[in-house]
Amino acid sequence: MRVLGVDPGLTRCGLAIVEASPGSRGELIYVEVASTDSKLEPSDRLFEIAQRITWVLDKFSPQAVSLERLFAQQNLRTVMGVAQVSGVVMLSARERNIPVSTYTPTAVKSSVTGSGRSDKKQVSKMVKELLNLEEIPKPADAADAIALALCHAWRVPNQKVSSDPFRQRKVPKVKRT
Amino acid sequence: MRVLGVDPGLTRCGLAIVEASPGSRGELIYVEVASTDSKLEPSDRLFEIAQRITWVLDKFSPQAVSLERLFAQQNLRTVMGVAQVSGVVMLSARERNIPVSTYTPTAVKSSVTGSGRSDKKQVSKMVKELLNLEEIPKPADAADAIALALCHAWRVPNQKVSSDPFRQRKVPKVKRT
Repeated sequence: MRVLGVDPGLTRCGLAIVEASPGSRGELIYVEVASTDSKLEPSDRLFEIAQRITWVLDKFSPQAVSLERLFAQQNLRTVMGVAQVSGVVMLSARERNIPVSTYTPTAVKSSVTGSGRSDKKQVSKMVKELLNLEEIPKPADAADAIALALCHAWRVPNQKVSSDPFRQRKVPKVKRT
Repeated sequence: MRVLGVDPGLTRCGLAIVEASPGSRGELIYVEVASTDSKLEPSDRLFEIAQRITWVLDKFSPQAVSLERLFAQQNLRTVMGVAQVSGVVMLSARERNIPVSTYTPTAVKSSVTGSGRSDKKQVSKMVKELLNLEEIPKPADAADAIALALCHAWRVPNQKVSSDPFRQRKVPKVKRT
């Protein structure tokens, strides 16, 4: 299945299109990190990010969107920007009838590296190997978006997932950090 | 000037169109509280709210949008829903080239009642009197949206405002609660 992985953010928003299914390694179709100038007005930043999101959705027609689940470990300003971009992602997908699932960073790490405790470097390295890429995707937001897409594409079919970015979903067989 | 005031939220989103200018009392053109079922998927809820927002923008063509500034006094889930709706409001306005300004609850209360310390009841009562309404607008989200619109319409022209929902703006002559 074709999945758009989104690592949401106003400053950097990772967007990755991956073709993969359970049991397969997968193929990277497209990746970009949409970035905006923090000096711009927030509405202008959201507008720019939204344009990239809708372009990717319309260009690659993914069957699902995999979005990082929000959590409150960063400062309020960052979290709010992430939430605003998440809102725009969810709306853009919904407008195209594409289902959205959300995953915690722990679930994504676990899915890609086998451990929810791995660091960003390990995730990036594993993404490179799994997708047979020539280089480690940079910045980290690119690798994170790819990992999110893989996490969704590899999930057990009919496994219950929620598009609710706040609900605590139990991730089986993962030691939570 | 014609202003859309928005009290953002996923469960209840107050939307009010007010025609007012500094020194005038103003006229209420339209008010609604868009609400969504918390049992729905978040993307469905955002979609429903977004439809109401774009309908109001296209129907009444306001010259400005006045949005409640986000702050973190509620639980994360609520704040995130508010931020997501705020993102959708900012994007919808920006897509129509309508400028967005944000105001803290304190600034709005101060503008409408003369005191940043007034409670919701006082704000609702004052909104009713100022706009010559037959009844106090209910629920409170309706009155809040009207107060937000008035706060923007009454501001001193060329007064510097920010559309950044996080920046702490100094509100002159207001005792902050």
